[in-house]
Amino acid sequence: MAANTTAYKVGIADTTFATVNMAEFVIDTIKESGESVKIERYTVPGIKDLPVACKRLIEYYNCDIVIALGMPGPKEIDKQCAHEASTGIQKTQLLTNKHILEIFVHADEAVKKKELYEIAKDRAIKHTHNAVQMLRSKEALTKYAGTGRRQGKPDEGPLRM
Amino acid sequence: MAANTTAYKVGIADTTFATVNMAEFVIDTIKESGESVKIERYTVPGIKDLPVACKRLIEYYNCDIVIALGMPGPKEIDKQCAHEASTGIQKTQLLTNKHILEIFVHADEAVKKKELYEIAKDRAIKHTHNAVQMLRSKEALTKYAGTGRRQGKPDEGPLRM
Amino acid sequence: MAANTTAYKVGIADTTFATVNMAEFVIDTIKESGESVKIERYTVPGIKDLPVACKRLIEYYNCDIVIALGMPGPKEIDKQCAHEASTGIQKTQLLTNKHILEIFVHADEAVKKKELYEIAKDRAIKHTHNAVQMLRSKEALTKYAGTGRRQGKPDEGPLRM
Amino acid sequence: MAANTTAYKVGIADTTFATVNMAEFVIDTIKESGESVKIERYTVPGIKDLPVACKRLIEYYNCDIVIALGMPGPKEIDKQCAHEASTGIQKTQLLTNKHILEIFVHADEAVKKKELYEIAKDRAIKHTHNAVQMLRSKEALTKYAGTGRRQGKPDEGPLRM
Amino acid sequence: MAANTTAYKVGIADTTFATVNMAEFVIDTIKESGESVKIERYTVPGIKDLPVACKRLIEYYNCDIVIALGMPGPKEIDKQCAHEASTGIQKTQLLTNKHILEIFVHADEAVKKKELYEIAKDRAIKHTHNAVQMLRSKEALTKYAGTGRRQGKPDEGPLRM
Repeated sequence: MAANTTAYKVGIADTTFATVNMAEFVIDTIKESGESVKIERYTVPGIKDLPVACKRLIEYYNCDIVIALGMPGPKEIDKQCAHEASTGIQKTQLLTNKHILEIFVHADEAVKKKELYEIAKDRAIKHTHNAVQMLRSKEALTKYAGTGRRQGKPDEGPLRM
Repeated sequence: MAANTTAYKVGIADTTFATVNMAEFVIDTIKESGESVKIERYTVPGIKDLPVACKRLIEYYNCDIVIALGMPGPKEIDKQCAHEASTGIQKTQLLTNKHILEIFVHADEAVKKKELYEIAKDRAIKHTHNAVQMLRSKEALTKYAGTGRRQGKPDEGPLRM
Repeated sequence: MAANTTAYKVGIADTTFATVNMAEFVIDTIKESGESVKIERYTVPGIKDLPVACKRLIEYYNCDIVIALGMPGPKEIDKQCAHEASTGIQKTQLLTNKHILEIFVHADEAVKKKELYEIAKDRAIKHTHNAVQMLRSKEALTKYAGTGRRQGKPDEGPLRM
Repeated sequence: MAANTTAYKVGIADTTFATVNMAEFVIDTIKESGESVKIERYTVPGIKDLPVACKRLIEYYNCDIVIALGMPGPKEIDKQCAHEASTGIQKTQLLTNKHILEIFVHADEAVKKKELYEIAKDRAIKHTHNAVQMLRSKEALTKYAGTGRRQGKPDEGPLRM
Repeated sequence: MAANTTAYKVGIADTTFATVNMAEFVIDTIKESGESVKIERYTVPGIKDLPVACKRLIEYYNCDIVIALGMPGPKEIDKQCAHEASTGIQKTQLLTNKHILEIFVHADEAVKKKELYEIAKDRAIKHTHNAVQMLRSKEALTKYAGTGRRQGKPDEGPLRM
C-alpha cells in the first residue's frame, strides 16, 4: 500500500457551531486504518468560514486532501449559508486541484437527536474511508462506481430490475 | 476521419453514489465507434466531487474532453448539490478551455426503475456520440443545430408550424 | 462606418437542443446589414455547453463579440440549467473582456408554436443589430438608453407620466 | 477637498431596456456637486450586459468608480437575470478592486408609474452622492454608519428603543 | 500571548443601510480585550458594497482579518442581495487567503426592535472574540469544536442523548 510508505496529510476543518464533534470520528478512523497519515486540524466558528480554512490547510499546511465538517441549522437562511459554503468549497477545490470531502449533516435530516448523532458518525467514518482511498489512486473507488453507496445511511445498492 | 489518425483522450468521471454504472455505456460506445480514443477513468463518492476530478483529468491526465456522470437524489438538498456540482463543472470548463459533457440523471425523472435505467443508458450513449463529434470540429454538430435533439428520451425535432 | 473598413468577427454559439435554428436569422441579419463582418459558428449539444464554446470562439477564433443562442426547456430543472449557463456566460465575458449577447428563448414564453418561433426570430434579429452597434462604440446605443427597448416582443417605450 | 484638485473618473453603465433614463440624474448630480469629475458612459441592451461593460469602463477607460443602472422586469425570469447581473457585478469589483454602485429599480417596487419614476430618480441621485463621497476616503461615509440610510425611499433612521 | 507582542490589524467594513452601529461593539470589544490590535474601518452604502471593501481592507490596508457588518432588509429581494454579498465575501476570502467574519443581522430575526438590537450586539461581540482567537492559531477554537456555540442568541450546546 502506497500510503504506508508515503505519508499523506489529511486536513480536518470543523466548526464550533456544530453540535457533534465529528472530527473525533475522522481521527479515530484514520488511526484505526493503520495508514501513516498525518492530520492537521483547523476550527472555525461556522460553515461559511470553512472554505478559506480548507484553502489554508492545503496551501499553508500542505494537506493532500481535506475533510470539511459542518452541521447547518434547520432554517431557510441556514440552507442558504450551506449553499454559500458549498460553493466556496467547490471553488477552493478548483483553485488548489485537491479534493475536499464535504461532510455536512443537516439539522432536519432526523427528528431524534440519537438519529442525527448516528448519521453524523456514519457519514464521517465512511467519508474518511473514501478520503484514504482517494489518496491512493483515481481508480481506487472505481469498483464501487454506480453501486449506490451512501454515507449517513445504509447503501441503496445498484438499481436492479 | 481525424480521430483515426490522432488519438484523443476522453476522461470519464463517475460516482459511487449513482445506482447505474453509466461509465460502461460510455466505454462500450467509444469502443464500438471504431475511433482510436484513449480513456481515463476517475471515480469519486458523489457529484460534488466531480468538478475537481474533471479538472485533474484534464490537467494531470491530458484529457481533451471529459464526460461527467452523476445521478442526483430526489430531495431538495440533492437538487442544490446538483446545482453546486454543475456550477463547479462550468467553472472547470472555463479554467481549462475544454468541454465537459455533464450527464446527470435525476432520480425523479422516472417513476419506474426500468425507465430510469433506460434514460441513463440512452443519455450516456448519445452524449458519448456528441463528445466524439465535438473532438473533430466546432461545426461537426452544426447540421443538427436547432433540430430539437434530446438525450435520455426521443428527439423532439424542430419546431414546425 | 468603422465596420466597413475594419472587419470584425462575430461568433455564433448554438445548440442541437433548440427547436428553432436561430443562427440563420443572425447570419441573414449580418449579411443584410452590409457590414464586412466575418462569422465563426460553434454548435454544442445544450445551453450548458455554450459558455466554454463562447470562450473558445473568443480565444481561439478571435471573435470580437459572441451571440449565444439557446432554448431552455419548460421544467424547473431546465430553468436551473439556464441559470448555470447564464452564470457561465457572465464569467466568460469577465475573463475575456468581450460582450456575449445571450439570446435565450424559454419554452414557456409562449403557448403557441408560431408565437414561440416569432419570439425567437425577433429576438435574434434585434440582438444581432445590437451586436453590430456595440462593435462600433460604447455609446452607439446611448441614444436608446432608458427607452424601454425589447427583444422578442414590441418595445415598451420610455415610462411616461 | 481632494476631488477639486484631483480629477476622478466616474463610469456610467446603463441599458436600453430601462424605461427611465437614469443616467441623466447621475450626470446632473455630478455637475451640480461642483466636483471636477470626468464621466464615461457605456450603454448596453440589458442588465446582463452590464458587468463586462463596467469592467471595460474600469480597465479600458480608467474609471475610478462605476455606477451601474438597470431596471429589471417584474417576472420570475427577470429576477433571475438581475441575480446573474448582480453576481457578475460582484465579480467585476473583486477583479478590479473598484466599487461599482448598482442602482437597480425593480418594476414591481411600485404600482404607479409616477412612483417608479421617483424611486429611480431618488435612488440615482443619492447613490451618485455616495459615489462622490467614496472617491474621497474609505471613512467618508462612516459618520452615517448604522443610521438606516435608504436610496429610492426616505431614510429609515437608526433603530431606537 | 502572541497578540500582545505582534500587532495584528483587524478591518471593519460596515454600511449606512444598517440601523444599528455594530462597529462600536466590535471596537469596544477589541479595546476591552487588552490585545494590541490595530483597527481599520471602511463604510459603504449597503451589503453588496462590502465584498470589495473587505478586499481593499486586506490588500491596501494590510488587515489580517476582516469583520463585515450588515443588516439585510426583510423582503425577498433583500435576501437575494444578502446571498450575493455573502457569495462575494466567500470569493474575497479565497482570493486573499484571509478570514472575513460575516456578521449579518436579518431584519426578520426578531419582531421587537429591542430584541433585534440585542441580537446585533451579542453577535458582534461574540464574533469579535472569535476573530481575536482566530488570529492566534488555527486550533485556538478547537476546544469548542462541535459544542453548538451560537452568536446572537444563547449557545445550543453539544447534542446530548
